[in-house]
Parts: sequence; C-alpha cells; structure tokens
Amino acid sequence: MWAASPAFRRQLVLLRSLLPSPPSPPPSSSTSVAGRFFAPSCSSPSSTPSGSIRASHAMAGSAVYEADAEAVVRRITPPLDRSRHKGQAGKIAVIGGCREYTGAPYFAAISALKVGADLSHVFCTKDAATVIKSYSPELIVHPILEESYSVRDDERASVSSKILTEVAKWMERFDCIVVGPGLGRDPFLLDCVSNIMKHARQANIPTVVDGDGLFLITNNLGLVEGNPLAILTPNVYEYKRLVQKVLNCDVNEETAAEQLTLLCQKIGGVTIMRKGKADVISDGKTVTQVSTFGSPRRCGGQGDILSGSVAVFTSWARHFIMSNAEPTEKRVNPMTLGCIAGSLLLRKAASLAFEKSKRSTVTTGIIEFLGKSLEDICPAEH
Amino acid sequence: MWAASPAFRRQLVLLRSLLPSPPSPPPSSSTSVAGRFFAPSCSSPSSTPSGSIRASHAMAGSAVYEADAEAVVRRITPPLDRSRHKGQAGKIAVIGGCREYTGAPYFAAISALKVGADLSHVFCTKDAATVIKSYSPELIVHPILEESYSVRDDERASVSSKILTEVAKWMERFDCIVVGPGLGRDPFLLDCVSNIMKHARQANIPTVVDGDGLFLITNNLGLVEGNPLAILTPNVYEYKRLVQKVLNCDVNEETAAEQLTLLCQKIGGVTIMRKGKADVISDGKTVTQVSTFGSPRRCGGQGDILSGSVAVFTSWARHFIMSNAEPTEKRVNPMTLGCIAGSLLLRKAASLAFEKSKRSTVTTGIIEFLGKSLEDICPAEH
Repeated sequence: MWAASPAFRRQLVLLRSLLPSPPSPPPSSSTSVAGRFFAPSCSSPSSTPSGSIRASHAMAGSAVYEADAEAVVRRITPPLDRSRHKGQAGKIAVIGGCREYTGAPYFAAISALKVGADLSHVFCTKDAATVIKSYSPELIVHPILEESYSVRDDERASVSSKILTEVAKWMERFDCIVVGPGLGRDPFLLDCVSNIMKHARQANIPTVVDGDGLFLITNNLGLVEGNPLAILTPNVYEYKRLVQKVLNCDVNEETAAEQLTLLCQKIGGVTIMRKGKADVISDGKTVTQVSTFGSPRRCGGQGDILSGSVAVFTSWARHFIMSNAEPTEKRVNPMTLGCIAGSLLLRKAASLAFEKSKRSTVTTGIIEFLGKSLEDICPAEH
Repeated sequence: MWAASPAFRRQLVLLRSLLPSPPSPPPSSSTSVAGRFFAPSCSSPSSTPSGSIRASHAMAGSAVYEADAEAVVRRITPPLDRSRHKGQAGKIAVIGGCREYTGAPYFAAISALKVGADLSHVFCTKDAATVIKSYSPELIVHPILEESYSVRDDERASVSSKILTEVAKWMERFDCIVVGPGLGRDPFLLDCVSNIMKHARQANIPTVVDGDGLFLITNNLGLVEGNPLAILTPNVYEYKRLVQKVLNCDVNEETAAEQLTLLCQKIGGVTIMRKGKADVISDGKTVTQVSTFGSPRRCGGQGDILSGSVAVFTSWARHFIMSNAEPTEKRVNPMTLGCIAGSLLLRKAASLAFEKSKRSTVTTGIIEFLGKSLEDICPAEH
C-alpha cells in the first residue's frame, strides 16, 4: 500500500534524480532506468537473499526497495579538496561511556575518523575517559558525565546543570552526534543525557540514537518525537521494544515494511534503520534496505561502528543536499542517505575482515577495513 | 616591496650561501645558481601550484619565495656520529596536556623523537599524565601542571610557584620547548604556563608556540614580544585572531606577504609560520613558503606533528649555525630554517600516509612515515 502512495513515489523520483547520468559504474543489463538509488525487491527483509546490491525492474506491491547503496556513497562523499581546512570534512561527537562500558563509544568515535571525519569527540564519565583516551590519541575525550554513585542527592541539580553547560559550549561545532554507545542505564546519567538531547535538538544537530540511547528514548519518546534530524538504529531486541511501546503490538514480519513506516510516522518523522540480515530504513515515507552480505560473525561492537559511520555520512549527505543547486535534491532526506551509506560500508568492511580473520574477527579488525571499503567504492582521487 | 629591501636581499644571500657547492643532490637543469634555498614564486600562497620544491630565476616583485626545503633539511640535519652521547641530537619538551586533551601533546612529543631527537619530555596535568604515559613508554611525562578545579584559591600562589620550580630545574637541559599542544584554556593553568614561558625566555630556550599557546600569547603579547627565539605556528583561525589583535585589521590575501612581515615586526622579531595550503614563514625580514603537496586529509593532530618537528629542526639549525665557522652563516635565522624543514617533513609524511590509507588517514599513521620521509631526503648513512 505505502509503496504506491504519492509521497513514496515522489521521494523515489527525487532519490533517483540524485545519480548523475550516465551512472558510474555503468548499470548492468538487468538494471532498469528506474532503479538508480533504489531497486525493488519483492521479498521481505527477513527473507531477502544476501548478495550485493540488486537492481531489477519495478514490481508493483513489492515490500522493500533495495538501495543502490554504492551510488549513494559515491554521491554524498565529498571530494578531498586541497584548499579545505581542519573540520570541514566533519566534526562528530559520541555521548556514551560509563564505568562499565568503554569499548562502544571508542568504536563509534574512531569509526567516524576512519570513515573520514576530521575531528571526533567523546563525552563520557571520568572513569571511562582515562580508558577511552588510552585506546587512541586521535580522539578528544571529555570526562564530564557523572553516574548516581558519584553524586550526592543534594548536588544533582547543580551537577546536571554544569554537565549541560560543558556540552552546550561544544554543541554547535558538531555536524552530528551519536547518543548511546556504552551509555549504560544509570538514572542520573540518563537524565543528563536527556538534557543534552534536548539541547542538540534546539541547535538543529542531527542525532543518531543507538544502544542504551534507544532504551532512554523508548521510555521517553518526547526526546525524539517530531524530530526529522533524529535517526534510530535499533537491533532486533531494541526494535521489538520500540514497536511494543509505540504501536502496542508485536513485530509482524508479514507486514514488516508497513509496520516500520507506521512506527516512523507515529514518532513523527524520525528515520529508523532496523538492523538485521538486511538493514531496513524508513523515514515514514520510503522504505529501503541494504542487504549486501557482510559477515556471519556477530561479535559485539559492529553496531557502534555503524552508528559512527552513519553520523559521518549523514553530515556529508546534509551538506551535499544543502549545497546542491538542484531544487529536487533539496527534498531528499539526508538521514536516509546517511543510513544507506553507513550500512553498506560496515557490511563491506565486515566482509573483508571476515575474509582475513574468519572466526577470530573482532570489531577492531572490521574498523581496519573501513578505509579500504570506502576506497573500493569511492576512490579518494576522484 | 619587501622583496627588494636591503634586509631581505642580505638574508637571501646569507641563506643561499648555506648550501655547499656543489650541492648534493646536484641541481636539475632548471635550477639557477641563485635558487639554492629559495626559488622565487610569482604567485600568492593561496594560488601556488602544489608540487615539489620549485627553482627558477629570480623574479622582481614576486610575493613569496619558495624555500628549497630539501636542501635546508639536508644541511641542518646532523650526521649520526658514533661518538655522540645521549641527548646530543636534541632534548625537547612539550608543555601541554590537560583533563580534556592528551592526544595533542603526545603527537608533538613522539614526533620529536621520530624526527630524531634523543629525549622528549611532556609537562602536563596529573589527569593527562597517566594517559600520555600509556600511549608510549618512549616519553618522559611530568604530571605537574594543575587546573583551577584542582586548586583551592588560597593555594594558588604556592602551587604556581612550585610548578615553576619543578619545570625550571629541567629547563636548561632543553634545546627547544613547544608550548600549547592540548594545553586547554584553564585560566590558572595558563597563568602557570605564562611563568614557564618567561623562564624559558630568560634561559634563552627557543620556544615554539602552537594551539592554545597561541590563544595565550594573543591575549598576552608580552610573552613573545621582542623574542627572536619564539616561533608562532598559527592555523587559519589562529592567524586571523593574531592579525586582528596586533594589526587591528582583517587578514588581507592581496597583501599577505607584507601583512605577515609586518606582523612579525610588530611583535618584535618573532618568527611566524602561517599554516595553510602553503606554509608561509617570515621573521620580519624574509618571507618564504613551503608548498610541497602533503595530503588533502585535514584530520586533527597534524599541527602537533609540525610543532614537535619544528622544535627538533630548530635546535639542529641553531647548532649548525652556531658551530659553523663561516661568519656569514651566523647571521641566518635558524628559526626560519627549522620551520622550513618541519613543514616539508610533515608534508612528505602526510603524503606517504595518505597514499597508504586514503580517507582513513589519521595522525598516528602520518607519524609512522616521519622516519621514511627524512630518510628519503637525507639518508642516515651519509
């Protein structure tokens, strides 16, 4: 039903128009002219055969369109211009890292740098900061968050206010923030992060919400409701909780695309990337997927790579669309493009890492291949 | 105008005289006898074509002379003499590293070692010290600086005095110090660093000022005014603030070389390297540039590599000039030579790192290539 809606058809046309003609690499003989960014798939996400990007003729009533993710990556990745200054390729911040978790925010932040951002910050607790700093001198780590155990009840208001002031003075410099990797579930810390999210929204900073950030917003939907600059990236469990909370029902694979569309609409225009065998992306208007096969390894941390990568690609997509003279392109949702590109890059990198390390593949090994994966799709000389 | 001044011509002749005859490697057929260290460029820094060092005949009215930076590196880099002792190839200290920043002082200090210094120290806060120590066992890290939050008001005077005493007992051992990488902007810490800078000046220790050190001196010009052993290395934003503060005007690209010369003169003989597409260097008498193409990646941290490298080359240049028997050479400014050499080395290393890692290039990756870059220009066996 949604596939035939005017809103969907309009966005599809807009997205198709993004690709320059003739496209590079040239379309295969099975590619229809209609399928530049999205090639329709007649299967549901859970039954989509794995493989590289599929392009075939449009099929009425198909549930999910396969994104031409390589074309998206090539289109939104900015050229490396010799006259540019530090920061112009992206400044990203990750809000996360507590007494328990330090790996997740590191993975997200270093991935942003390895995809091509110029500066990558982490805002975390003091306990986490020393460790995250020691993982890499490349990151700027702010030890400013606090957990309940370190704050007396009578100090909470003043500490919370101080934390917000500290983050706020940086906020407008960021092109995108990621909320959630290794955030934990400490109530005081989550309260502070709620304030940070509200501030980011007022400052119009795109916000990727993952991990414990999804726990936070599922219990406080107002934090993202009606925010078109919010991207949620739930895994199977986080998605289930979100559907139950927002739609008061269970996940239904038979109507997966419609359910995802409805979920985005109910939350008021956010973009959701439902992670799985295929990553399915909707902004409440279109539903697209990336099903390029990555790796059969499911080691923890891959979601953090994804959130950091999506943050960079989203900021690039926004810049691309805002600076593009074509009026049609200004109506394409850069959040969707950022999700498509991030999904593909992780899958490519995971595939290369698995080829090298097989069962021993871990997250740092995948991060090592982000550069080569991007280079394979979109060589830096171009 | 400045290019034709007697002071400029004198320094140009002096600098040319530095290169032994015949030079090694021999000049190409396009090299004029006039262009040993400086080959004139008729273009402004922002429009100079990238490429290796250019050498052509002198051109009246040209704005900026391209340094023969490879010749400078070869001339000032000391031979590796088997009879030398630890420390004779350079002892460098970086003043920087606070609660927020640990990567920047590490990059500067480790770069000094990788260029060829024998000992590299870091003076930073306690919070930063543990992390910087963990990056590398090669550095000597002194956890002695303090930020406002860790010092009671009534303790400030005594803490400040203790910090100065601690640094002062090391100061005379250093051949050059770098003030600023990851220094932060805490008022108490900056006060202490002001005292350290004054002490370094009294002890005649060359001082490279970068990052937050430039924030400090822009608000307190007396710290560097009239100090011929001070080198400032501003990026585009820091340069803009410096010009506004000292010259009470905006940066004018039409008269960039004259403005830079005037800036150096107004601050009383300091050397300034204005970083950008080309690095433009002046001591108020000559203006030269290094425009060898490095890398289009603008990841944070490259300025720290530069400051650490400039510190080493400056100490080598001073030693070379002071120990040279030729009276003319004693009048060449070693600060200028240090900047030229540091600029070229970073550009070479960044180019090699980019060739390897493309968009994934990060600062640690560039540091890995400092050694090869120097070896390519100036093999250690020679």
